[in-house]
Amino acid sequence: MARVRVAVAGASGYAGGEVLRLLLAHPEVEIGALTGASNAGQPLGALQPHLVPLADRVLEPTTIEVLSGHDVVFLALPHGQSGEVAAQLGDDTVVIDCGADFRLRDAGEWEKFYGGEHAGTWPYGMPELPGQRDVLRGARRIAVPGCYPTVSTLSLAPAVAAGLVEPRVSVVAASGTSGAGKAAKAHLLGSEIMGNASAYGVGGTHRHTPEITQNLSALVEGTVAVSFTPLLVPMPRGILATCSADLVGEVSAEQAHEVYAEAYADEPFVHLLPAGQWPQTKSVTGSNAVHLQVTVDETAGRLVAVGAVDNLAKGTGGAAVQCMNLALGLDEGTGLTTIGLAP
Amino acid sequence: MARVRVAVAGASGYAGGEVLRLLLAHPEVEIGALTGASNAGQPLGALQPHLVPLADRVLEPTTIEVLSGHDVVFLALPHGQSGEVAAQLGDDTVVIDCGADFRLRDAGEWEKFYGGEHAGTWPYGMPELPGQRDVLRGARRIAVPGCYPTVSTLSLAPAVAAGLVEPRVSVVAASGTSGAGKAAKAHLLGSEIMGNASAYGVGGTHRHTPEITQNLSALVEGTVAVSFTPLLVPMPRGILATCSADLVGEVSAEQAHEVYAEAYADEPFVHLLPAGQWPQTKSVTGSNAVHLQVTVDETAGRLVAVGAVDNLAKGTGGAAVQCMNLALGLDEGTGLTTIGLAP
Amino acid sequence: MARVRVAVAGASGYAGGEVLRLLLAHPEVEIGALTGASNAGQPLGALQPHLVPLADRVLEPTTIEVLSGHDVVFLALPHGQSGEVAAQLGDDTVVIDCGADFRLRDAGEWEKFYGGEHAGTWPYGMPELPGQRDVLRGARRIAVPGCYPTVSTLSLAPAVAAGLVEPRVSVVAASGTSGAGKAAKAHLLGSEIMGNASAYGVGGTHRHTPEITQNLSALVEGTVAVSFTPLLVPMPRGILATCSADLVGEVSAEQAHEVYAEAYADEPFVHLLPAGQWPQTKSVTGSNAVHLQVTVDETAGRLVAVGAVDNLAKGTGGAAVQCMNLALGLDEGTGLTTIGLAP
Amino acid sequence: MARVRVAVAGASGYAGGEVLRLLLAHPEVEIGALTGASNAGQPLGALQPHLVPLADRVLEPTTIEVLSGHDVVFLALPHGQSGEVAAQLGDDTVVIDCGADFRLRDAGEWEKFYGGEHAGTWPYGMPELPGQRDVLRGARRIAVPGCYPTVSTLSLAPAVAAGLVEPRVSVVAASGTSGAGKAAKAHLLGSEIMGNASAYGVGGTHRHTPEITQNLSALVEGTVAVSFTPLLVPMPRGILATCSADLVGEVSAEQAHEVYAEAYADEPFVHLLPAGQWPQTKSVTGSNAVHLQVTVDETAGRLVAVGAVDNLAKGTGGAAVQCMNLALGLDEGTGLTTIGLAP
Repeated sequence: MARVRVAVAGASGYAGGEVLRLLLAHPEVEIGALTGASNAGQPLGALQPHLVPLADRVLEPTTIEVLSGHDVVFLALPHGQSGEVAAQLGDDTVVIDCGADFRLRDAGEWEKFYGGEHAGTWPYGMPELPGQRDVLRGARRIAVPGCYPTVSTLSLAPAVAAGLVEPRVSVVAASGTSGAGKAAKAHLLGSEIMGNASAYGVGGTHRHTPEITQNLSALVEGTVAVSFTPLLVPMPRGILATCSADLVGEVSAEQAHEVYAEAYADEPFVHLLPAGQWPQTKSVTGSNAVHLQVTVDETAGRLVAVGAVDNLAKGTGGAAVQCMNLALGLDEGTGLTTIGLAP
Repeated sequence: MARVRVAVAGASGYAGGEVLRLLLAHPEVEIGALTGASNAGQPLGALQPHLVPLADRVLEPTTIEVLSGHDVVFLALPHGQSGEVAAQLGDDTVVIDCGADFRLRDAGEWEKFYGGEHAGTWPYGMPELPGQRDVLRGARRIAVPGCYPTVSTLSLAPAVAAGLVEPRVSVVAASGTSGAGKAAKAHLLGSEIMGNASAYGVGGTHRHTPEITQNLSALVEGTVAVSFTPLLVPMPRGILATCSADLVGEVSAEQAHEVYAEAYADEPFVHLLPAGQWPQTKSVTGSNAVHLQVTVDETAGRLVAVGAVDNLAKGTGGAAVQCMNLALGLDEGTGLTTIGLAP
Repeated sequence: MARVRVAVAGASGYAGGEVLRLLLAHPEVEIGALTGASNAGQPLGALQPHLVPLADRVLEPTTIEVLSGHDVVFLALPHGQSGEVAAQLGDDTVVIDCGADFRLRDAGEWEKFYGGEHAGTWPYGMPELPGQRDVLRGARRIAVPGCYPTVSTLSLAPAVAAGLVEPRVSVVAASGTSGAGKAAKAHLLGSEIMGNASAYGVGGTHRHTPEITQNLSALVEGTVAVSFTPLLVPMPRGILATCSADLVGEVSAEQAHEVYAEAYADEPFVHLLPAGQWPQTKSVTGSNAVHLQVTVDETAGRLVAVGAVDNLAKGTGGAAVQCMNLALGLDEGTGLTTIGLAP
Repeated sequence: MARVRVAVAGASGYAGGEVLRLLLAHPEVEIGALTGASNAGQPLGALQPHLVPLADRVLEPTTIEVLSGHDVVFLALPHGQSGEVAAQLGDDTVVIDCGADFRLRDAGEWEKFYGGEHAGTWPYGMPELPGQRDVLRGARRIAVPGCYPTVSTLSLAPAVAAGLVEPRVSVVAASGTSGAGKAAKAHLLGSEIMGNASAYGVGGTHRHTPEITQNLSALVEGTVAVSFTPLLVPMPRGILATCSADLVGEVSAEQAHEVYAEAYADEPFVHLLPAGQWPQTKSVTGSNAVHLQVTVDETAGRLVAVGAVDNLAKGTGGAAVQCMNLALGLDEGTGLTTIGLAP
């Protein structure tokens, strides 16, 4: 069978680089055009020196001429730029957007959190949600979930869906810095980040809040209230989400664990740890796995679930490749791994 | 006036080292005996090479003979060892325990969380709590608060005391590693810690949970339920606590900020940031300050407060020195600073 | 063809874990016995949580009964323990020692630097050295090079072999902490490591000094004097070696670059960067690549070469797998990658 | 006595922030005008949140009107901007330049390494050099040494001056990132820096090379050849310099240590460690101390000295305050400490 020809728009950034890192390990893929904005004309080796096999490839501008003629196009562009590009690509092309443009269903939420006009809604690339795997099989347009929503949703979904908790959840998610991208900003300098933990987007103002709300609310009647606080901690990759909610009635830690075990029994990339072992981001570095654990705080009457994900891998590029596999009818895990890089 | 003669028991650990670092900058203090356990006989320079002026001082064993004859004795010992030492020191000696032995009032909670017999309860060294400063003035025995309880309590106290929130709070606190001490443990190796975030003591099992509960419950009738989750993040010092609770009625972010501003208007070491600016641990590294911010998540109906503290400074050694100053009738801030070391 | 059956002795440490991480991606391998010392009886998931597919595998004791019956046995044991194990494994078993026991040819140097009796000398697992690839093809016993010697040797070999420099070289190599292993030691705690750079083994006392000397001296007549200083810097993986030597006669930067380009033109895992681009350890994290650059300091009359390697990958586990491939007659790069994990 | 009135030009950067951090602890100083460029008009609390006592101070533009009328003016400006400002300040004002503009004596070297016209040469602010303390007493213009030259010079000066080594030295200096400043650059992002070590300015091209050469050459007849390689390692502060040179004749480690001990016997901020203990940057974090050790590699025939300094403290701001003290006739160590912040 002919290999799948793939282009990556935005190849010089972190999301684009991760998609490429994974595609280089994918046996069915041939890497076609790589594009950039201000970096067009530069060799990839100067921008992504870890991608040795592509070191001599030169970035092209992000135009329809460059991107057309591929079987799959990954868009790793700044928010708001995917719509125009996607509109020019034919329906025979699989377009997978790593950005936020097509994730939300509610145009009002889009405008409130992102500003500008809502581009639309594409099939949401989280096959672990009920019924969603079938939606993604054969899809031609896919919106890759945000990194925080990935781990937050998967950490809470079984408890919410099973009615173990009240529909008011709290998520505090400690993230590495690569989620903030590669654009130079003074507050993201190594000198500022190392030895430092900080909160941002507090009070429900982070753009991933409506996405988490959308995901969890789909599991129940009515709306799940989400209190979401992202933290920046000194590591390049990884998110650790601490998620909690008041219990409905009496639930034991064992019962909660069992509910999660059943919910994810057949999921290739969701790894519920043995009781008593808690997730750490390093275990999933570079991998497509999500590590989860859940327990019950009897004194406080609260369920607490913790999830770990690599924000660039399963949180972006890995989910993108997983979705590509589903769209193309390949085995869902092709080119992906559950093995992290540690220490 | 003659200088205050001070001994430090447990001078080779992180808490003891921090007490010494601060005492070296204290104008009224003369540093007397320094003791250790297995390190007795070694020069401090081999164990705490940053304390240059004390490099040639040799650690003595932790005995009553060595410790007696000082005006102040700081105990920086493993949990459970302070009681026996303190019992042998006369009432004219100010004894300040950096450990947990005398923090809790409820012997049952002590036994549940620490095991063994409860040593007793000493005046709690948090002058920022209502009425507590007067208790500490002239005290001869003081229990220094735990690091997590310091930042958690100060981040939530104004909201709880003012009745802005329901008496069910959630605290997720990201901590640097020095809080875990200097004893060699494989899971605390640099190789394990760097690039890694993890949760531990989940589900209300961390020993600081009853201390936070005790502090907050003292502000209201009845008990405040505390859901506490500590995280380990890759930095040596600092705790960032994200604290939240459901609002009682309508409260605006401005109102909440005002309540905090009033509560801490006269506190020398609690620094409420201007609205919109969020705490970061680096700003308080090495300082005795606590940085706070508070807001309201209207959609989720939740108050969110974030606090930053240096776990070794205001979270341990700085509070210890602050308490010593109060006990001795010195200006409370002598030898302490609100200035952090950044970047 | 039947898959190669492989055992790993010392599976709970960093070297053993890395060998396993790579073997899990190797298409020709079936993972057999995993052994440990004090960890025997524990599931690997509790010790190496990033190796999800092996989470339920239980460590066995390191005995000849457990290890026999495999096609390949990797030894990732403390120094001095490999000899006894290897002696009991038949000549039909490929034994690959990740430790130092069989690297040195000079028993006197072994005794001086390691102490105890010299176990012997096995084929040295650095196929990039002249003629060494042929030695390794079909070998039944292989000594994997040390991490520092790998990058130091490859950084200097072309200059030394071509006579560009005097036979007195200086190597200052900044290493991540995983090279120091997983045994709990206070000076390797995260609290000590983060924010800290330090030197150790200064003055030619580090055990890798005679190995670098052996490698470089084999390229010339007489002995190359090696001044080697290892540094510990705050990262979990990676070594950056800065190597220099006085020039012999006039050599331009371009000439030096050309000598390196020719020397490594056919090497699959040595990547000489384009002139002006300097190696960074992150580009080789998790990969089997060595990144190199070389220039000339005309004012100081000195050649300076810089190399980057992942101490656990190409510096240990990757070289081990590369050697296994050669020993078994497989393609040398099977299961290995030149692609690093960044950021 | 009236307090010394001090202005800081460039108060929003790392050097300016460090000068302010130290001045806030200086008992004889009153902090006057603070200036910035693009940040003028902003409160310092938004830019340097660790400097709590100055949080409400607003940055003014860097003009002669703002800076005049102070007893001391610290310049923490980008290279090339100090000359014009200094020319407008009267000779009664002590002007201390934290930048490079007035460090070099050779205009040709200035033009080669910095470009543009050489502004001139001011007394060099390293009192530890022979005779230099007297030059600085009462000086009205002082050039603060560069961070790398500080630690490199002090690590090698005794050996060079005593003729223990050949006049060809090698320095490999691993630095934290704050030396690169606070301007936003993509390669200095936390995501790039953490987990990464890299070399830059290799081959004698770094701007601090001629300054080290100037310092060491002043100690001997003729010129000392300096091979200098700076490394960037993942920590915010600190430089660890590994310095070596071929021995002249036979020198034992004890002899070398003794030469250093004598050279620095009276220096308040140079701390030669006991034989066998090696410097680490963390011991000097935030302090004005330089930690040194020296030994001899008999096999390689080389002296190896290692020095640690905080690039922002003794490497910039601390030296600046030390020089101010000398210029004003205060005790040299006023407001400074030898105590580092660890862990």
